[in-house]
Amino acid sequence: MRRKPNEKSLIQKIERAFGNKRPSRLVLALGDDAALWAETRGSELILTCDWFLEGTHFLRGKHPADAVGWKCLARAVSDVAAMGGAPQCFLMSLALPEEFTGKWLDGFLRGLRRASKALGCELAGGDTTRHEKVLISIAVAGEAARGAALRRSGAAAGDAVFVSGTLGEAQLGLRELCRVRGIARGGSAALRKHLYPWPRLELGQWLAKNRLASAMMDVSDGLSTDLPRLCAASGVGARIYADSLPVSALTDLQDARRLALHGGDDYELLFSVSKQNVHRIPREFQGLQLTRIGEITRERKILLTEGEKTVPFESGGWDPFRKE
Amino acid sequence: MRRKPNEKSLIQKIERAFGNKRPSRLVLALGDDAALWAETRGSELILTCDWFLEGTHFLRGKHPADAVGWKCLARAVSDVAAMGGAPQCFLMSLALPEEFTGKWLDGFLRGLRRASKALGCELAGGDTTRHEKVLISIAVAGEAARGAALRRSGAAAGDAVFVSGTLGEAQLGLRELCRVRGIARGGSAALRKHLYPWPRLELGQWLAKNRLASAMMDVSDGLSTDLPRLCAASGVGARIYADSLPVSALTDLQDARRLALHGGDDYELLFSVSKQNVHRIPREFQGLQLTRIGEITRERKILLTEGEKTVPFESGGWDPFRKE
Repeated sequence: MRRKPNEKSLIQKIERAFGNKRPSRLVLALGDDAALWAETRGSELILTCDWFLEGTHFLRGKHPADAVGWKCLARAVSDVAAMGGAPQCFLMSLALPEEFTGKWLDGFLRGLRRASKALGCELAGGDTTRHEKVLISIAVAGEAARGAALRRSGAAAGDAVFVSGTLGEAQLGLRELCRVRGIARGGSAALRKHLYPWPRLELGQWLAKNRLASAMMDVSDGLSTDLPRLCAASGVGARIYADSLPVSALTDLQDARRLALHGGDDYELLFSVSKQNVHRIPREFQGLQLTRIGEITRERKILLTEGEKTVPFESGGWDPFRKE
Repeated sequence: MRRKPNEKSLIQKIERAFGNKRPSRLVLALGDDAALWAETRGSELILTCDWFLEGTHFLRGKHPADAVGWKCLARAVSDVAAMGGAPQCFLMSLALPEEFTGKWLDGFLRGLRRASKALGCELAGGDTTRHEKVLISIAVAGEAARGAALRRSGAAAGDAVFVSGTLGEAQLGLRELCRVRGIARGGSAALRKHLYPWPRLELGQWLAKNRLASAMMDVSDGLSTDLPRLCAASGVGARIYADSLPVSALTDLQDARRLALHGGDDYELLFSVSKQNVHRIPREFQGLQLTRIGEITRERKILLTEGEKTVPFESGGWDPFRKE
């Protein structure tokens, strides 16, 4: 007979999954009112939080539990990558239906633990409660040397605009997921990118350490939504060349280009580089493609050049308050 | 004609409410991928997060929006008080129905901003999305001198057990709230304590700084749930004297005592003090009553002595996974 879950048994399951070792900086983790983390002089703490909600960010009958665990942490850590920092530890607010506290929770914790190890981000603490839907909020603390973190606000007219990897593949993976019956298992590279995104930590840290980027952010809601954010923060505009976009080879060009412009969930890095630094950006960084897709302009407009035609670049990315 | 809300307008409303001043430690707040906070050597960061969910922690038709704003932050900050630390900044994950992005959000931000100022805890960043219910998760970063934070695990047999303020009043306030028709306005001291709890920051910091407590936590789920947690963390038991409990004068003694034992949401501090330090604990600290309610025992049982009778102290506080 299965014992009824209570908050204590749920917390114990989480504590077992994450062990009780003590890394040097995380002085106290789990089981107290709060966690303790040792500060050092000359560093800046990078703080960010992200929702991961059933029905909004994942689907109950489609996303495997371990992908939910992986992705909820990976996407929050991507914000640390976007500042050029190194993740340190995270807090997890988790709300679950009672029937999700068994096998589903085991799978979820497996994925979360794998992400925690792979990304070097320790579980520091959290809060658990019951809810009719799965609700997750992850807060991550990362770190960068003082003054080294890359912001959205440093782009200047004449800078080149770069993006890592390919754009639109995660959206293509979501399309594949919606065609699959039941929980997705296996699948194409696009589906894997949708389910198990990798934050570009090494690239972000390298750009920050070597002061190569003038501004940076991660592409989470789609290029057409995120690029205007970087430009607004910097008080500039941009011109993007459709022909140069690193699109997916897994669909036809027109579709791939549309996905690259508006698809979300890629967690690639979008960054601007001053003229004098452009030659220092390689075509590949540790096997990850880096592509120059346009330039920053003085005029505060976002333009898209496609062959001979230049048009205003309309935001078509994801906004939770826009009706589909 | 009211413009349709989108994520950008929602974020702008939040940014307007919280201004754009830059306190010394919060190097970068709002509007980027993450916030930046300057570390110092010799300090420990205190990290904690708390849910505040419609239907679980507050009721749509009962709790005023500004009380939701106040309380979601105050209860998370209470965990920093429970470590003896000083709050620094917070992250807010906020999900709202579209019809809550107008007047309700204004009231919510008013209460949140008031708590932020009163508790000295700046908004560093957050994540917003749409949801059919109001969902809030608050992550707080506090600070304490290295080694000074008070944990749950330091209580030893023979220590005296103290609690601040009175217990059970917030639960009494909740009872009053449920009797009121519609949104609560005004009300008794008990209702105010339920709606606008004050974390015991000054007391916590004083106890930590002067190394007066051997263990400490805040009473958020009720004494009968929280005291066993402190005892389990310390590997000890406790004996509590019902006659000495600081109960509310707003109801009859039997009811007040039951509320003091099992009522949640008081956010008072529960702490143990070694024999040699007991005389240093005043009956009042800055107008806040401090009451000795029992002692820590070697035997790992929690006992309640009521007159001549001693009984095991059954947990009757709040557990989200227990069916009512």
